[in-house]
Amino acid sequence: MNTNETAVNTTVITKTELLAHWQGHRALTRRVIEVFPEDEFFDFKIGEMRTFSAIVKELLAIAGPGIKEIVTGKTSPMEEDLALKTKADFLKLWDETTEVLNELFPTIADQDFHKTIKTFGQYDGTVISSIFYFIDNEIHHRGQGYVYLRSLGIEPPYFWER
Amino acid sequence: MNTNETAVNTTVITKTELLAHWQGHRALTRRVIEVFPEDEFFDFKIGEMRTFSAIVKELLAIAGPGIKEIVTGKTSPMEEDLALKTKADFLKLWDETTEVLNELFPTIADQDFHKTIKTFGQYDGTVISSIFYFIDNEIHHRGQGYVYLRSLGIEPPYFWER
Repeated sequence: MNTNETAVNTTVITKTELLAHWQGHRALTRRVIEVFPEDEFFDFKIGEMRTFSAIVKELLAIAGPGIKEIVTGKTSPMEEDLALKTKADFLKLWDETTEVLNELFPTIADQDFHKTIKTFGQYDGTVISSIFYFIDNEIHHRGQGYVYLRSLGIEPPYFWER
Repeated sequence: MNTNETAVNTTVITKTELLAHWQGHRALTRRVIEVFPEDEFFDFKIGEMRTFSAIVKELLAIAGPGIKEIVTGKTSPMEEDLALKTKADFLKLWDETTEVLNELFPTIADQDFHKTIKTFGQYDGTVISSIFYFIDNEIHHRGQGYVYLRSLGIEPPYFWER
């Protein structure tokens, strides 16, 4: 076993595992989008909250553009005003984002995960803290989508299904 | 710089950071419990869902007992039927759990995070996949608590506050 292999086996989580973890969560969120009825995806909300389509616009404005900022070092304000009109439009951009992550994430060097960065022109953190913020923010908002579905009498996908 | 320091600086996330990440999320969930009105914590729910107190019982049944299973290697069924009657009871056990995590988590050896384990007598995974499941499950359910609070007209704590 060479030194690199030892490093991989004794690390808390590898880069490859972290990408799979993120994409597993994104696959679950995709299932939540799929199970929403077309109308309620754009209309339904509870209290003063946003519709699930508005929430998903935020998630799409973060994941792809966020990884691009991390890889290029260029930051700009978040752009949530996406021209998406149907669930199919959302799912198409979702899948394109999946490819962008698969392409760009592996190019982050292991030694860069603790580099300090600014995302979306204003959020200070490190590469790893930013990535966890992206993932956790998605889990958080998807949990809200689960309540919307339950409230509509629709069974959400199993949380442990990735 | 010796080999160990190099390993720490080139890893995606260190053990210390992962514990801080978990405890940061737990501190936020504690704030969500605090902001719930006493009655609604035990009574309020949407659709067929559980009350937030029932959800928090699950979180308490996972975090402390889960880390004990990881450290001792002994597994047993999850016990959510906790004798907690008031929000103060919940917060007391929450804080005791915080101490348990601070004590036990650092005893996990770096090379053990990829060890395969079974948690709560039935869930197969690794140490790291189990810990992320515990954290992500809490984020997910806390997101539901946010909807309950919004539905009650109560402002939840900021998601980025840890």
